Amino acid sequence: MALIVQKYGGTSVGSIEQIRKVAERVLESYREGNRMVVVLSAMAGQTDNLIRLAYQMTDEPDARELDVLMATGEQITVALFAMAVKSLGYDALSLLAFQAAIQTDRLYGKAHIQAIDTRRVREELEKNRILAVAGFQGLDGAGNITTLGRGGSDTTAVALAAALEADVCEIFTDVDGVYTTDPGICPKARKMEAVSYEEMLEMASLGAKVLEIRAVEFAKKFNVPIHVRSTFSKERGTMVVAETKDMEKVLVSGVAYNKNEARVTIKKVPDQPGVAASIFQPVFESGIIVDMIVQNTSEDGITDLTFTVPKPDFLKTMKLVSRVAEEIRAEKVLGDEDIAKVSVIGVGMRTHAGVAMKMFETLANENINVMMISTSEIKVSCVIEEKYTELAVRVLHKAFGLENDDTDEG
Amino acid sequence: MALIVQKYGGTSVGSIEQIRKVAERVLESYREGNRMVVVLSAMAGQTDNLIRLAYQMTDEPDARELDVLMATGEQITVALFAMAVKSLGYDALSLLAFQAAIQTDRLYGKAHIQAIDTRRVREELEKNRILAVAGFQGLDGAGNITTLGRGGSDTTAVALAAALEADVCEIFTDVDGVYTTDPGICPKARKMEAVSYEEMLEMASLGAKVLEIRAVEFAKKFNVPIHVRSTFSKERGTMVVAETKDMEKVLVSGVAYNKNEARVTIKKVPDQPGVAASIFQPVFESGIIVDMIVQNTSEDGITDLTFTVPKPDFLKTMKLVSRVAEEIRAEKVLGDEDIAKVSVIGVGMRTHAGVAMKMFETLANENINVMMISTSEIKVSCVIEEKYTELAVRVLHKAFGLENDDTDEG
Repeated sequence: MALIVQKYGGTSVGSIEQIRKVAERVLESYREGNRMVVVLSAMAGQTDNLIRLAYQMTDEPDARELDVLMATGEQITVALFAMAVKSLGYDALSLLAFQAAIQTDRLYGKAHIQAIDTRRVREELEKNRILAVAGFQGLDGAGNITTLGRGGSDTTAVALAAALEADVCEIFTDVDGVYTTDPGICPKARKMEAVSYEEMLEMASLGAKVLEIRAVEFAKKFNVPIHVRSTFSKERGTMVVAETKDMEKVLVSGVAYNKNEARVTIKKVPDQPGVAASIFQPVFESGIIVDMIVQNTSEDGITDLTFTVPKPDFLKTMKLVSRVAEEIRAEKVLGDEDIAKVSVIGVGMRTHAGVAMKMFETLANENINVMMISTSEIKVSCVIEEKYTELAVRVLHKAFGLENDDTDEG
Repeated sequence: MALIVQKYGGTSVGSIEQIRKVAERVLESYREGNRMVVVLSAMAGQTDNLIRLAYQMTDEPDARELDVLMATGEQITVALFAMAVKSLGYDALSLLAFQAAIQTDRLYGKAHIQAIDTRRVREELEKNRILAVAGFQGLDGAGNITTLGRGGSDTTAVALAAALEADVCEIFTDVDGVYTTDPGICPKARKMEAVSYEEMLEMASLGAKVLEIRAVEFAKKFNVPIHVRSTFSKERGTMVVAETKDMEKVLVSGVAYNKNEARVTIKKVPDQPGVAASIFQPVFESGIIVDMIVQNTSEDGITDLTFTVPKPDFLKTMKLVSRVAEEIRAEKVLGDEDIAKVSVIGVGMRTHAGVAMKMFETLANENINVMMISTSEIKVSCVIEEKYTELAVRVLHKAFGLENDDTDEG
């Protein structure tokens, strides 16, 4: 008997009929003798409808109240799912964040899970109940409803799996696993059997939409095995697990891209201690997540500073940064929304030189200009013009030998 | 400076535009220096949509999960309302049942408020915040979400007003006060300036839809003055207050009717101790509210027993009672859904004989047959054929001198 946490996303629970099918699928695992905790997202479209309501009311909805509003989406799904299970003759119970004791900080819309008191969940599991936990939502220390941001249900599922020491966390989605790159762009993309937390982390943060990044962080920290698989088939998907010896043999395991970032450049910043801090402080305080940061070598005590932020935060960032730029007497602030980031990822590159070089050459061969570079132990990312995204992904996927056609070589 | 609890029903908050108007109206009172607690219902139609979802899933939705589902309706309204107030430049905060600490029993769908811990509400009022409390919902002792049944937001408002010792509880609705009878049936119906809790209680329980009966009970118990008034005008409505000397001068203050009951008759019941109890036990245990009960004088140890229940509970009641009837060897069970109850109400009738007689005569003059009779200190109710409802209301309203045309007499 295993304890399994399953998570079904919005497209898996988009209609009454689909929710009933999910209930049947959960019951298959339950009847095999497993204890089941099921984390559910809002029905597809529901979240957008709620956001639309809020913006019909006001251009700047209050962050706390927006979370109260958004949390109804998952509440509806878990209630309907529990009804479905009960109508099929099994015992089920829905639990909202305040009932499942999912505690977060107070960063409305982007809250982080801090602790889960699993007593109630364990008690209900002891009664052989199938539990439906509302994803995406939490409660701060003062009892306010918070939400974890888009994709937050993944995090709920993995955090619950960690807290419950579940045997596996199964993430059901509309794709059948993790691919070497987006099959929509590159038809020769290959489904991976397994991928390490580190690689998945880079892939997620670099734009692969299969798993939410914080979910992978949680999984890595608490060593929760994740099984990414399709709601619509029984096929085995991709395991996301701790790194194995085997994985290191592969130089590059995937190519990711992200069109959802914008670039902000501050020209001619006086290069003094504390300047970078004063620039980023208002941005961080607004809860905006800064991704890449590049600072050129200083010349005559003057430098340029470039960074990227999510596109929805672009205008706000420009406003915040322009104010600071004036204060610190920088020359000007430039912004660019028409960019994309392409990245190659692989734990193997730690022990092999030349991955970055091969990436630059491959892009140069297609006359794609590299505007920003950022590297880590297991990935190299380049910012390029957005219009070249698909081309860049395809040529990199081929260059690193990821295609599923074995006659090609990297 | 007064503490005011206001309640707005579904038709008052049916759209984004209407919610914004309600926010503006609340702000008028707030700017006059009052502290405001606003109880809100679900947007008109929302509750029906949620019920429809549940019944698409299953014919018998689980009661607990149905309440989890239904509670999202008010959650949406309070979040949108608080956003509206904030967008107008004032501070507001939404509170759900678990945050406003509204404790109920566990009778899902028909729960009763047991206690309200007002600490959080008082704290927030101290900060000069306008509070938006989700109506209709509560939390049982184990932390499960409950709902109070249709019209439950009235009860939430009055219970909060009682717990907070508010100066007044204003119930905003789509009518401008309490009338001597339904103006839709009787154009000469008159709006009352004031009505006693007792009369309002009878009117509510007899089918007048202005106020929910448990709300009036709460108000009576804790002496909360209720002001029933229109969302769409500034006009003074009707005060529901403790009885005054003045009120007793009026013999009959209103005529009510209710088409939402059905009649169940058990023929030839052995008239033994405990028989009535064994008949009603399964009905009560199902949470079905039995209204009138009439038992004829026994003849040869055999009697007939008739009672009424809400129409939606009719089929379930017939099933439950038929089972018991067999056990106790009663002859048969008859049911009739085509009935209506008409009632005359007035604290004045306590000290005047002849109200019942006048009522029977008035109905007899129109050849309306009286099928059941039930009396209390301040009302007389008759069950008649449903098709005569409107006629009965009109002739009774005239007979007791309630018309707004002063030349008529009772």
